[in-house]
Amino acid sequence: MADGSERTERAAEDSAGAENGNRPEEELQVHTDLALEARESVLGEAEGIPGIRIEEAFHQKSGVKVTKVEITDERGEEAIGKPMGIYITLEAEQMAAPDEGSHREISEELSFYIKELLESFGDPRAILAVGLGNHEVTSDSLGPRVLDNLKITRHLYESRREKGILISGIIPGVMAQTGMETAEIVRGIVRETKPDAVVVIDALAARSVSRLAATIQLSNTGIQPGSGVGNHRNSLTLESLGVPVIAIGVPTVVAAAAIVYDTVDALAELLEAAGASFAADAVEGMRMEERYQMVRELIEPRFGPMFVTPGNIDEKIKLLSYTISEGINLAFCPRE
Amino acid sequence: MADGSERTERAAEDSAGAENGNRPEEELQVHTDLALEARESVLGEAEGIPGIRIEEAFHQKSGVKVTKVEITDERGEEAIGKPMGIYITLEAEQMAAPDEGSHREISEELSFYIKELLESFGDPRAILAVGLGNHEVTSDSLGPRVLDNLKITRHLYESRREKGILISGIIPGVMAQTGMETAEIVRGIVRETKPDAVVVIDALAARSVSRLAATIQLSNTGIQPGSGVGNHRNSLTLESLGVPVIAIGVPTVVAAAAIVYDTVDALAELLEAAGASFAADAVEGMRMEERYQMVRELIEPRFGPMFVTPGNIDEKIKLLSYTISEGINLAFCPRE
Amino acid sequence: MADGSERTERAAEDSAGAENGNRPEEELQVHTDLALEARESVLGEAEGIPGIRIEEAFHQKSGVKVTKVEITDERGEEAIGKPMGIYITLEAEQMAAPDEGSHREISEELSFYIKELLESFGDPRAILAVGLGNHEVTSDSLGPRVLDNLKITRHLYESRREKGILISGIIPGVMAQTGMETAEIVRGIVRETKPDAVVVIDALAARSVSRLAATIQLSNTGIQPGSGVGNHRNSLTLESLGVPVIAIGVPTVVAAAAIVYDTVDALAELLEAAGASFAADAVEGMRMEERYQMVRELIEPRFGPMFVTPGNIDEKIKLLSYTISEGINLAFCPRE
Amino acid sequence: MADGSERTERAAEDSAGAENGNRPEEELQVHTDLALEARESVLGEAEGIPGIRIEEAFHQKSGVKVTKVEITDERGEEAIGKPMGIYITLEAEQMAAPDEGSHREISEELSFYIKELLESFGDPRAILAVGLGNHEVTSDSLGPRVLDNLKITRHLYESRREKGILISGIIPGVMAQTGMETAEIVRGIVRETKPDAVVVIDALAARSVSRLAATIQLSNTGIQPGSGVGNHRNSLTLESLGVPVIAIGVPTVVAAAAIVYDTVDALAELLEAAGASFAADAVEGMRMEERYQMVRELIEPRFGPMFVTPGNIDEKIKLLSYTISEGINLAFCPRE
Repeated sequence: MADGSERTERAAEDSAGAENGNRPEEELQVHTDLALEARESVLGEAEGIPGIRIEEAFHQKSGVKVTKVEITDERGEEAIGKPMGIYITLEAEQMAAPDEGSHREISEELSFYIKELLESFGDPRAILAVGLGNHEVTSDSLGPRVLDNLKITRHLYESRREKGILISGIIPGVMAQTGMETAEIVRGIVRETKPDAVVVIDALAARSVSRLAATIQLSNTGIQPGSGVGNHRNSLTLESLGVPVIAIGVPTVVAAAAIVYDTVDALAELLEAAGASFAADAVEGMRMEERYQMVRELIEPRFGPMFVTPGNIDEKIKLLSYTISEGINLAFCPRE
Repeated sequence: MADGSERTERAAEDSAGAENGNRPEEELQVHTDLALEARESVLGEAEGIPGIRIEEAFHQKSGVKVTKVEITDERGEEAIGKPMGIYITLEAEQMAAPDEGSHREISEELSFYIKELLESFGDPRAILAVGLGNHEVTSDSLGPRVLDNLKITRHLYESRREKGILISGIIPGVMAQTGMETAEIVRGIVRETKPDAVVVIDALAARSVSRLAATIQLSNTGIQPGSGVGNHRNSLTLESLGVPVIAIGVPTVVAAAAIVYDTVDALAELLEAAGASFAADAVEGMRMEERYQMVRELIEPRFGPMFVTPGNIDEKIKLLSYTISEGINLAFCPRE
Repeated sequence: MADGSERTERAAEDSAGAENGNRPEEELQVHTDLALEARESVLGEAEGIPGIRIEEAFHQKSGVKVTKVEITDERGEEAIGKPMGIYITLEAEQMAAPDEGSHREISEELSFYIKELLESFGDPRAILAVGLGNHEVTSDSLGPRVLDNLKITRHLYESRREKGILISGIIPGVMAQTGMETAEIVRGIVRETKPDAVVVIDALAARSVSRLAATIQLSNTGIQPGSGVGNHRNSLTLESLGVPVIAIGVPTVVAAAAIVYDTVDALAELLEAAGASFAADAVEGMRMEERYQMVRELIEPRFGPMFVTPGNIDEKIKLLSYTISEGINLAFCPRE
Repeated sequence: MADGSERTERAAEDSAGAENGNRPEEELQVHTDLALEARESVLGEAEGIPGIRIEEAFHQKSGVKVTKVEITDERGEEAIGKPMGIYITLEAEQMAAPDEGSHREISEELSFYIKELLESFGDPRAILAVGLGNHEVTSDSLGPRVLDNLKITRHLYESRREKGILISGIIPGVMAQTGMETAEIVRGIVRETKPDAVVVIDALAARSVSRLAATIQLSNTGIQPGSGVGNHRNSLTLESLGVPVIAIGVPTVVAAAAIVYDTVDALAELLEAAGASFAADAVEGMRMEERYQMVRELIEPRFGPMFVTPGNIDEKIKLLSYTISEGINLAFCPRE
């Protein structure tokens, strides 16, 4: 959530907009950063959508379920609401399990897919790793913490002439801390140090609580804040940076508004099941404006966006950031 | 929330209990740490409850609204669900305002009421400050951060023989970090170092989002985890520690379950207002078990309790912890 | 000490060079970042050096002694070993005193001189603050900690159109963490975000223990790692960044080698005073190579450079970083 | 260095004492926390001291050299200046090497000796781990950082009834932060939670730079601040706590005064080697008071004690704390 503070800003604008009565309906949608979740809402409606290719695999040894969603053309883009590219999701029950050791086997799977995505860009040798997010907010500290554990090697190359991939890394901070768009900072560093590719690590917002801290998503499309429409100024993508961008993310929060919307849906289902279908219809029939009004009252916009996160998020972030940094280290610094 | 990890444990037990079908109804209630909120739910029903004395004041200069709730006997205890004692709440719009400087005027108000509560215990000279909570979880780090800024003086006394109140301080950590109840640690230190009184600082759970980071609550009753029934083993109170305990808290999270319950209520109101009173009745008529079932489905218990917190909680905690530590410093180390 | 890791690298090269027997004498000199100290060693020899202008002032109210050294031409550069420009030093006994509150009066003095230096560059409105050093090493964390407390405003301007100076800020990290020269990172960000001036905050190495944490140095010459000869690639200066650079620094360490050299000198003095002038001559007569050999044996180069720092450096850094960030905030965000 | 702040206090008293002219000579000695270094200064004089048993071993696979010094009676105590007990030192070149991965093989050796020392106390099942030192000072943060990575299990036992050793843990802080002696805090917690044994982890002061971050010392004698004479109030020992205490330490600093003393000695040797034996005699002949005076002038006592530490101490502490916490985890939680 590199755009944590950006969102706060936007949220303020949003509510101002709402007061003017011209709030577009799509803004009421709760955003998900997970292609998997976007696909699920789509697949509920129709299997075999043109422009989307899906592969699933289960790795017995590691217990990791891998889903690869490839969006191949505009039809896929429109159906899922994400740009063309490859989205790989690793899911494993034990990721979320408490009191577990480091997940070497998940790091190894991750390392495999990082290399696969990188190779789709040729053979990049100089990589800039970017740890997005806010080190001071536990649920948003995944990116910075992964960077803390990365083996940084770029500065060793020139003096020691070692072979291998060169890693540099930066923790740019969030806009409330820097006053700058993350994209400005990264673009400046990319232009100056000329890496062959960028790997961005970020905490994501999921749509459902069940995904939290149990899923790692990789993609070769970079990061586009918000709904990805238009605003390339703040993107971290091939288009905006001039080099390929691989994004690695883990959902660590759910927008509090999502809980409200889900409650309304769950309520309608419950009433239906209880035979009170007339009431269920009334609930479902609530207009978008009414729903949005309710969200506004329950989750006051003067605080900016509110997020839901588990009480023991510190333990999960510590474990996950270690798992991811080991995955990246394995991908780039194979043990001899 | 010193009992952060404890709650996780308890939550696991709770859901096990629920599966056995013997879940008591009161457990479904969403807890509030704020006497003000407890009073509000009560006052909705009846003014002038016996056993409760309420004073309100507005301090023009500081912009702080002060509410003092005194629970004087068992009738008051039963009505509000909190033990006998004094509960003082400071509310100020600007506490929650972003981009504000340090709130000297709020620190001064706070200092006044800390001294007032302390003096109700005679003239304690040696104070142990306890920063409850988890330094690693932003929304739970208020207590530790207040301790980081306290002027600690107890060790200077013996060598320099200065006059004044002696402050010692401890950040005990949470059970997941220590394996010990916070109360065990504090009790051990109290017995060994024999302070005259204990001041406990903690992040609280509020019932409503509107209270977050905008209210400071003081009480002279100490801290009783959970609903305060029975379990004195884990309390930080005069009874359990043998010395008076003043508690200072700020609500920084709302239980995610509260959002679900509130949504149901808001929905019923909306339906009522829309003339669909039959549907509103159906929603309100949902049995507690059904509501609880919905909460369980939406906020999966396998993660333990989930909390709602603002996106910019780091800035609020930073500002509030500084305001509170200055309030304590002013109370104990008057500038000459 | 943004070049902390760079120094480690260089130290390794240095010792390799020494083994080859071709170590130039000047490398044995112990470096000081303080113009004041450089001047002192010069002034011991001759008052009134051409190319140097010195002003001293004592501010009664704040207890701050201010020394302004202006190097006006090459003769001054050569005499002091620093580039042309203005070097302002604030010294105050109470800066180093333990258990003091925040030093508002020092912040105000600092703010005055920051504005004076800035105005020498016209009227810069957009400032990029850079916190050099390593957040993970206490004695090197001054820069990052000052940034933690700065009021960042650049991102507020565009949305709110406020008047005033716009501050952005970055904590670039050290080379061991990023694999990049600090100068590369800063240069990239400057080119992308186009500030009018850069303010760099850094922990410095002093020559003498008595300066530690008791002196703030400002200059309008930026930062040149090492002896400032030649290597413009790693500089943060007008020349390398294209915008004026103000540097603010506080000495927090002394190179351990300096302690060794000083011991030898003190010993010679002691022997002289004791009438053993023959022995004093023998000590003073030690060749540079012998002295360097001794330093190498005592402070093993395999660890890289060693630094001397006070045991309670955390308290000093906390206090000083707050004093400096308040000074910068006052300079740029005058309280209305 | 749990007694970091205590030392500061003591240093102030020391210099006051020195001014009164009654400074005892032994106070001028520079302290070492390492039994190995104490033995070395002794062994220079005589092999085979009664009351001391020494075993050495080299573990081919791990590259670890192990020295076990057992002090069996008062004669040994007097010769080495440490209390009766077992002192085990693990040395390995690669511990200090930069850019190394985690040292699993060193963790395994460490785990073996922790178990050996514990078994000498019967079969303790409940262990309290204590992370001494100051989390805010990098070179003193070893203890707190080891605790950050320990597997804490005591709170799981009661609910899950697992077999095995129960670990609880505490980071007590230093006196400047708490106002309390570390021993008071630990004693209170021990009395309340009744562990069978205590394991204390601490950063140590070495006499020589060459030991820094390259040696792990274990002992079954606990920790006695200062020279271990008399003052049992501040000890963490079987005698003071009522349960056995195992101490694990790594030297991370050298007192700056040691550098001064060593320089004088090195100078005398150099002069001797250069044939200037008359000058060497004059240097060696300096009275203790003169040497102490020199130390006082070079390392000003108004700052309290000064320490020498490597520039990249953060990387060393990070690696070592991980190695030690893994050693403890292996000793107590054998992988099934």
